[in-house]
Amino acid sequence: MGLIARSLYRCKKCLNLQPKSYISSRFSSQAINNSTEDSQSTEKDQDAKWGRRYISGLQPTGALHVGNYFAVVKPCVKLQEKKEDLMVFIADMHTLTTQQDGQLLSDNVLEAATILLAAGLDPEQTTLWVQSAVPRHAELCWLLTCLATQARLHHLPQYKERVAAGGADITAGSLLYPVLQAADILLYRARLVPAGADQLQHVQLSALLARTANHRLGASLFPAPVAVLPEDGSDRIRSLRDPTKKMSKSEPNEKSRILLTDSDEQIHLKIRKAVTDFTPQVTYSPDARPGVSNLVRLHCLAADMLPEEAVAECDHLTTADYKKVVASALCEELAPVRERAAQLRARPAFVREVLRDGAARARRIADDTWEEVASAAGLDVAKPNLVRELRTRI
Amino acid sequence: MGLIARSLYRCKKCLNLQPKSYISSRFSSQAINNSTEDSQSTEKDQDAKWGRRYISGLQPTGALHVGNYFAVVKPCVKLQEKKEDLMVFIADMHTLTTQQDGQLLSDNVLEAATILLAAGLDPEQTTLWVQSAVPRHAELCWLLTCLATQARLHHLPQYKERVAAGGADITAGSLLYPVLQAADILLYRARLVPAGADQLQHVQLSALLARTANHRLGASLFPAPVAVLPEDGSDRIRSLRDPTKKMSKSEPNEKSRILLTDSDEQIHLKIRKAVTDFTPQVTYSPDARPGVSNLVRLHCLAADMLPEEAVAECDHLTTADYKKVVASALCEELAPVRERAAQLRARPAFVREVLRDGAARARRIADDTWEEVASAAGLDVAKPNLVRELRTRI
Repeated sequence: MGLIARSLYRCKKCLNLQPKSYISSRFSSQAINNSTEDSQSTEKDQDAKWGRRYISGLQPTGALHVGNYFAVVKPCVKLQEKKEDLMVFIADMHTLTTQQDGQLLSDNVLEAATILLAAGLDPEQTTLWVQSAVPRHAELCWLLTCLATQARLHHLPQYKERVAAGGADITAGSLLYPVLQAADILLYRARLVPAGADQLQHVQLSALLARTANHRLGASLFPAPVAVLPEDGSDRIRSLRDPTKKMSKSEPNEKSRILLTDSDEQIHLKIRKAVTDFTPQVTYSPDARPGVSNLVRLHCLAADMLPEEAVAECDHLTTADYKKVVASALCEELAPVRERAAQLRARPAFVREVLRDGAARARRIADDTWEEVASAAGLDVAKPNLVRELRTRI
Repeated sequence: MGLIARSLYRCKKCLNLQPKSYISSRFSSQAINNSTEDSQSTEKDQDAKWGRRYISGLQPTGALHVGNYFAVVKPCVKLQEKKEDLMVFIADMHTLTTQQDGQLLSDNVLEAATILLAAGLDPEQTTLWVQSAVPRHAELCWLLTCLATQARLHHLPQYKERVAAGGADITAGSLLYPVLQAADILLYRARLVPAGADQLQHVQLSALLARTANHRLGASLFPAPVAVLPEDGSDRIRSLRDPTKKMSKSEPNEKSRILLTDSDEQIHLKIRKAVTDFTPQVTYSPDARPGVSNLVRLHCLAADMLPEEAVAECDHLTTADYKKVVASALCEELAPVRERAAQLRARPAFVREVLRDGAARARRIADDTWEEVASAAGLDVAKPNLVRELRTRI
């Protein structure tokens, strides 16, 4: 398929990212009014006051898999294509909560940036930076740490999972992780956070902390962000070996996931070996048939189709034959990304320069927010004159 | 007593601040060897590698009392007189853990700086700054948060007290407080931390986190600090109304404490009303006679004497008459501080300028430390060129 034909084909269905009724917990009830009319007018007021900025973070966990790609990377590119106000950061400070290998982390940060750029993120249009290059993340995190109750943090499902896995040696970082996430979002006054279902409560915590900070510090400092859940199941890509689990880097069996570095042959092999069931028909019913439905989902995400379209197109195939269709669609989607990534890996200095420029842009926004926050919190008694200070250092 | 006579008199006994065997817990066993000879050679190696920097922080809690003065302010001035390498900061980020009133906090920060300067801290000789003016405190705090186990933090006595007082609404800041303290110390590679007995375990935690960071990040980044406990009881000034408790700002009865803003008359009145016991003799036995012993301690701290000297000098007096001696000694010590503080309060712009200059000096040291830490931790992928960046902003 040629480039034009392919892009027309891919534009057939856009991934829908709509911030609406997905947030239902009591913690976001203040952000979304009950009456639709009120809700719309509030939404308009909020738009006028804060704009409609999206923010997304990618953890630099090493070789990324298609789960990360469809859940985080591709939605960012889609938002950029729609000319949304989007900021994307690489969350290296979050990764410190689980590993502290400096060389590995810096390699992984470069790799994450490489993939984002290879997938189509345009650093001229979308600010792309590394979290740790903007000190205000940590500063705002400390302020929010003083506002977040431990009881609230203890009830977050991801924390409970970490406690179950980590036992007595669990660090304070595991508890504070969602507070840093809140700082990431609020620092840029982003209102819209593309997120998987498992991140919903973290975004709700951010909204709670935004309101708490506004109330305690007596100033309208932050909008309350809302999670934007995908409708295409891109946050629910399953392991190819055990489709009851999420696709994950931590699963020992490498055939459980397709890496963005995998060759076409490896992609075909892993899809051919994917666990399905004893029914040969192609249907889409995630609960009853998680294995086949996971393949349908991958197919749809790669080829920009709806599940019913994919099933209608392929219901004459056995699952064995359907796997070839899925693998081909994935190869078509991923091969160009893989090739551009290989080119970028040969130019790490360029990638670093992109990240430095992005950090400079992010720092300006963060500094503006922090100036207001520090003033409201009484942290500006000895506000530095950095320009003067650096002149003495030059 | 004239100025020269008084200063000769006061020099009679210096407050001893010796870092030696006070640290006994298993967490500092690596910092202090068992054999005295080894210990001395290790100490010398450490001196050669890291220097002998002291660091001290003062919480801006509002009007300071003599407990704060003798425990924190005066020991700093004494260290400065001995030409020690000393850094002193005002811990505004710590105060956020208990209150978030911006105006109050910035007023209190100025007041704390005013008292330190009024007591004799010379900003040319001793770096004096506000914690929040140096973002690296928060950045290093996050890194250490990822190394500190929650189990370790839960066992700190001050945290347990806060839990007992705060109940279900206790914030994450109460848990992370000692981790921020560790960041404060390690950021400047200070090895010596003047501390009250109640802070001993926090300094031990700092030493543990220094060793953990060095080990995990595979680099010799931080010396393990030790607490330097005072021998003069300056960390154990008691309430004048209930000498079984520490003198505290939070006790409702204002007669329980002498503020640095109190007039001579108020000082005499509060000391006259101080709770003692039914024995009229002046003796020093803190356990059996906490009230009288507290007065002896205040007398000794104000007049630079040892308790046995004070008792020998005054054992012919009734406690009622002795109170006049104690009050006079306190007035003589505090009146000049009070007067200089009043002058400084009229010049807040000058105090701010002192703090700004101090922050600039602190930032240089903090930036140097952080550069090494960030490099070891893999947080330097997009290290900014701040000079270039600020040139574009000028």
